[in-house]
Amino acid sequence: MFTFESDYVEGCHENILAELSRSNMEQLHGYGNDPYCERAKKKILEACGLTHGSVAFLSGGTQTNQIIIDAFLKSYEGVLSTSSGHINCHEAGAIEFGGHKVLVLPEHNGKMDAGELNAYLENFYGDANHEHMVFPGMVYITYPTEYGTLYSLDELQAIRTVCDKWKLPLFLDGARLGYGLAAQPEVTLHDIARLCDVFYIGGTKCGALIGEAVVFTHDNEPAHFQTIVKQHGAMLAKGRLIGIQFDVLFTDDLYTSICKHAIVLVMKLKQGLVKKGYELFIDSPTNQQFIVLENTRMEALKKQVGFGFWEAVDENHTAVRFAISWATTDKAVDELLALL
Amino acid sequence: MFTFESDYVEGCHENILAELSRSNMEQLHGYGNDPYCERAKKKILEACGLTHGSVAFLSGGTQTNQIIIDAFLKSYEGVLSTSSGHINCHEAGAIEFGGHKVLVLPEHNGKMDAGELNAYLENFYGDANHEHMVFPGMVYITYPTEYGTLYSLDELQAIRTVCDKWKLPLFLDGARLGYGLAAQPEVTLHDIARLCDVFYIGGTKCGALIGEAVVFTHDNEPAHFQTIVKQHGAMLAKGRLIGIQFDVLFTDDLYTSICKHAIVLVMKLKQGLVKKGYELFIDSPTNQQFIVLENTRMEALKKQVGFGFWEAVDENHTAVRFAISWATTDKAVDELLALL
Amino acid sequence: MFTFESDYVEGCHENILAELSRSNMEQLHGYGNDPYCERAKKKILEACGLTHGSVAFLSGGTQTNQIIIDAFLKSYEGVLSTSSGHINCHEAGAIEFGGHKVLVLPEHNGKMDAGELNAYLENFYGDANHEHMVFPGMVYITYPTEYGTLYSLDELQAIRTVCDKWKLPLFLDGARLGYGLAAQPEVTLHDIARLCDVFYIGGTKCGALIGEAVVFTHDNEPAHFQTIVKQHGAMLAKGRLIGIQFDVLFTDDLYTSICKHAIVLVMKLKQGLVKKGYELFIDSPTNQQFIVLENTRMEALKKQVGFGFWEAVDENHTAVRFAISWATTDKAVDELLALL
Amino acid sequence: MFTFESDYVEGCHENILAELSRSNMEQLHGYGNDPYCERAKKKILEACGLTHGSVAFLSGGTQTNQIIIDAFLKSYEGVLSTSSGHINCHEAGAIEFGGHKVLVLPEHNGKMDAGELNAYLENFYGDANHEHMVFPGMVYITYPTEYGTLYSLDELQAIRTVCDKWKLPLFLDGARLGYGLAAQPEVTLHDIARLCDVFYIGGTKCGALIGEAVVFTHDNEPAHFQTIVKQHGAMLAKGRLIGIQFDVLFTDDLYTSICKHAIVLVMKLKQGLVKKGYELFIDSPTNQQFIVLENTRMEALKKQVGFGFWEAVDENHTAVRFAISWATTDKAVDELLALL
Repeated sequence: MFTFESDYVEGCHENILAELSRSNMEQLHGYGNDPYCERAKKKILEACGLTHGSVAFLSGGTQTNQIIIDAFLKSYEGVLSTSSGHINCHEAGAIEFGGHKVLVLPEHNGKMDAGELNAYLENFYGDANHEHMVFPGMVYITYPTEYGTLYSLDELQAIRTVCDKWKLPLFLDGARLGYGLAAQPEVTLHDIARLCDVFYIGGTKCGALIGEAVVFTHDNEPAHFQTIVKQHGAMLAKGRLIGIQFDVLFTDDLYTSICKHAIVLVMKLKQGLVKKGYELFIDSPTNQQFIVLENTRMEALKKQVGFGFWEAVDENHTAVRFAISWATTDKAVDELLALL
Repeated sequence: MFTFESDYVEGCHENILAELSRSNMEQLHGYGNDPYCERAKKKILEACGLTHGSVAFLSGGTQTNQIIIDAFLKSYEGVLSTSSGHINCHEAGAIEFGGHKVLVLPEHNGKMDAGELNAYLENFYGDANHEHMVFPGMVYITYPTEYGTLYSLDELQAIRTVCDKWKLPLFLDGARLGYGLAAQPEVTLHDIARLCDVFYIGGTKCGALIGEAVVFTHDNEPAHFQTIVKQHGAMLAKGRLIGIQFDVLFTDDLYTSICKHAIVLVMKLKQGLVKKGYELFIDSPTNQQFIVLENTRMEALKKQVGFGFWEAVDENHTAVRFAISWATTDKAVDELLALL
Repeated sequence: MFTFESDYVEGCHENILAELSRSNMEQLHGYGNDPYCERAKKKILEACGLTHGSVAFLSGGTQTNQIIIDAFLKSYEGVLSTSSGHINCHEAGAIEFGGHKVLVLPEHNGKMDAGELNAYLENFYGDANHEHMVFPGMVYITYPTEYGTLYSLDELQAIRTVCDKWKLPLFLDGARLGYGLAAQPEVTLHDIARLCDVFYIGGTKCGALIGEAVVFTHDNEPAHFQTIVKQHGAMLAKGRLIGIQFDVLFTDDLYTSICKHAIVLVMKLKQGLVKKGYELFIDSPTNQQFIVLENTRMEALKKQVGFGFWEAVDENHTAVRFAISWATTDKAVDELLALL
Repeated sequence: MFTFESDYVEGCHENILAELSRSNMEQLHGYGNDPYCERAKKKILEACGLTHGSVAFLSGGTQTNQIIIDAFLKSYEGVLSTSSGHINCHEAGAIEFGGHKVLVLPEHNGKMDAGELNAYLENFYGDANHEHMVFPGMVYITYPTEYGTLYSLDELQAIRTVCDKWKLPLFLDGARLGYGLAAQPEVTLHDIARLCDVFYIGGTKCGALIGEAVVFTHDNEPAHFQTIVKQHGAMLAKGRLIGIQFDVLFTDDLYTSICKHAIVLVMKLKQGLVKKGYELFIDSPTNQQFIVLENTRMEALKKQVGFGFWEAVDENHTAVRFAISWATTDKAVDELLALL
């Protein structure tokens, strides 16, 4: 039975496997001090159009969010996120484990509103008791969001403007960045790099076995960042494992092309769903599609194909998720549509 | 130039690469809920002779030490270690980051003495002010130690007896466990499993690309351990990556045979070193050998072969380390001996 | 100029000063191991009707909340609070500093709704991904709430029932408990002690210079609680300072009588305010009264008397707070009413 | 029975009680924003000869050590202390609770050696792996030490010089500072203020009921220090309690004169002990004297007078401590000498 339950059900792109195999017996320094990591970093900075940036490799999204937030915030600061932000919901308290509060703003289809962000900050500094409260120290957004939605370039720019006004770093969680960039090409990797202080390019969900590439955009990598990584238990002895993967993903635009493939397929799926009269739970332009099913229909369907349960809509209906990835085939989408 | 600088300079055993490739496009549940992880866990428990144990997979040694110690200790407890213990020296404060003190005992060639451990505990509970002090909550030892040395079965049993007396869990860091078992076969994996409350079987340094297998020996896996792992940013979306590796390593005794290979080679190296009149810095029975070199000799040698700098012995001499691994060839050892 | 800005603007009740003076040169053991602390604890347990309880003294509200929550929660658990709960708003992230998330429920005039609490817990455990989320580990409520409101006995009982159902400890922050008990006598200290697992009797705002009395109601004081207190930097060398104060406050019902005095005065004030046509921002039965003032009126008034700014109601109106305490005089209330 | 078990067995100096009583019903702003705190801070800065310093009040020693260390260190840094330092032994892991390792140096009669400190730092930065280790971020010393000993001015200057060389802040724990200054007048409060980046003037053991005065010596109070204090649960609603006490202690040199009184008495005791042939466990110039007693003698004596048990010297002998304070009378010392 085929499954669309998530975009991390397969291994990795075949080019990565080939390169892991080819380089396997090369003797390389540990901890990421190897030529593959170096080369991957250079390629990523080039793809971002950055001349004063730097790159660090980490294993997964929660780890990356925790380490970046810990490294940027002062002890008395918290991080601003929407209520649906991954760090607020599905990271088992990883941010609080590091001692920081997630300061919550409303979400609008998963997105933060620049005006509400500004109002929060005005209220905070206008409150005579704010020294008794958690200082906002960073803005965290996801692109795509947890609902698969995307900020427009204007929306991103508006958030950046508020960050500038209040001198807050902007951190973008790009666990699925490739799908976002492929779905909305007018926001480019250059734009992301220009607008954010730090962000990451998700590998795990976009063709790699493991790994996220953190980009510090303007000579702002925290001092002794490698020690901070080690302190969080996140330094890999064989750093080559992630370096080699990103080296491959950023060779000949592989990252871009495999994510575009997924977006082409997902649009086909979406149009098929709409055509068949399914109600979209949310209008997602990216590789996750959410529809509302009657519970009896859902129960029947799950014997035929794998998908994700998102949330109960009412007593008789549930929102479910179908995730497409770099690994999904045209045939699989056809079969899914045939089933639905 | 060949290097003996560490036992993590190569990738992984070819069987692992083959299995990663073969299984690559299989669709599997995330977070370690896949058949490879399940099978690897069963094989490991079998190899340990455990009927009431459980296994969890993590990425690296510091991460594993941090998570296990956090999961077992109460907030007001610390972990007992020798001064040379990895958690006390080279983990960038990962244990303190989790809020726990490392309570330090002397080291004897890297090893903890059961009598000194007992004396520490007697003194602690005999001190009228001990409620103002950090409670000892766990004993941490490494096997092999940071100096490559090994506890005898009697020494391990003596530490276990002290742990029983004071009701302390015993945690064994087996980052290089395979080499220890191969070097001293009278301490078996069954013994380790019988004597420890929790320990881990190192993969990263013993044939894997990444991964350590934590073994809870008697239905003592902490409640909601997966949530604790997630909270530490250590849960992998593609848990298969580690499960597949341990499945391979515990198939047909591969873990044992590749570690034995390394021990055979390292004994050849050691005998060669002794024969050539080199002074052993420490008498190590495992895959790391330490000798004392004149600094001028060391400088000349490092142009010809890679090795590790251990510590200054005096103004003119330095202890250096040569590490052999599953990947080292007979030829490489011959060439090294020819150079020395 | 008289001020009603808070209920901690004066020192302490004169009986306390007298007893501090009388006992001053007595030589007593440190860290709370003195007869005054012992006697105060006995009196408090008696007042609570507890035969299997214990008492601990701490310095202030935030400290107490932080320590109790840290001591009760497991590392992967958070504490349930309303959005307006003191721990969520005005403790500078003290709970997150201890590694725990505040899990937020809606507030209704500052109060938690038992039905919403139950729904939260049902949703949590019904969510297939809840192992990726922060486990609810405790329920935190305030009595009176931050808005001066009080739970009825039925409402408290309903929350208790939900706690029983989900096996969660109930923690009641009683920073102003005396005023709550005085204002609504049908909820007695016996009821609080019966319904909560742990709560505290506020001293700082109810007649003492410093100090809160934590009551563990059923042999459930966490193991080595004094060590946890020390670890939080909260153990006083001269523990007598708090013990003596609570000994005095629980002698001849002083705590009750001085809080009743405040409630009599505050009801006079409230009736006066209503009679004069002021709009109550919230209908508070306790020692804090909130009214809505035009901003121009507010500016004029603050030249004549001290009060607290609560929150902006609209562009032209502000909610302000008048706090009455054990130390407020009848004359002061008359003068305030004359000004208004 | 009189006791010499510690220097915190009595309440506070009578002038403090008088001032607490006199000011009791004055209405003052909370959180230390009152004229007593302001006046006390000015007097302290004046006594320190500081024109660019600032002062903060906290409750006790462990709390102060924890907060200062947390506020000064970066997340990946630890604090250097001797093995006998209070933070390393008797604070229940308060420093590790804040996430920081105590980096241990040898003690020499409780003191740190500047040469060993320098060697530690040279070794650290000379170690190629130091990015895997905890960075030294602060030097912590006590004056007097836990053994009652004192650094000479030259020794303090030497430590300062090392701190300058490695750009480390120097933090001096002055829980008993008054006794140190009285015992060795050639090290003045001006010297302490000149040599340290931050230090505290102990109140609790030197005449106050509660309270320590932290002095930041050169415009180096950490940003938002009050928020950090609040986050640690250490902000007092009635900050006046500590402000009033330090205002009294720094009026007419009271702090100095009561500590001098104790030193005069303790020297009389010490001479008496020596004359009677007692073996000094350590040669302490300050208010704590340590002698070695046969265990049978000790058991007999403790029925007649209170004292502290310090440590076992051998099977038959114990080191015991007699503490003199501002509150000890000449008569009490005479009676003690008569007993011995």
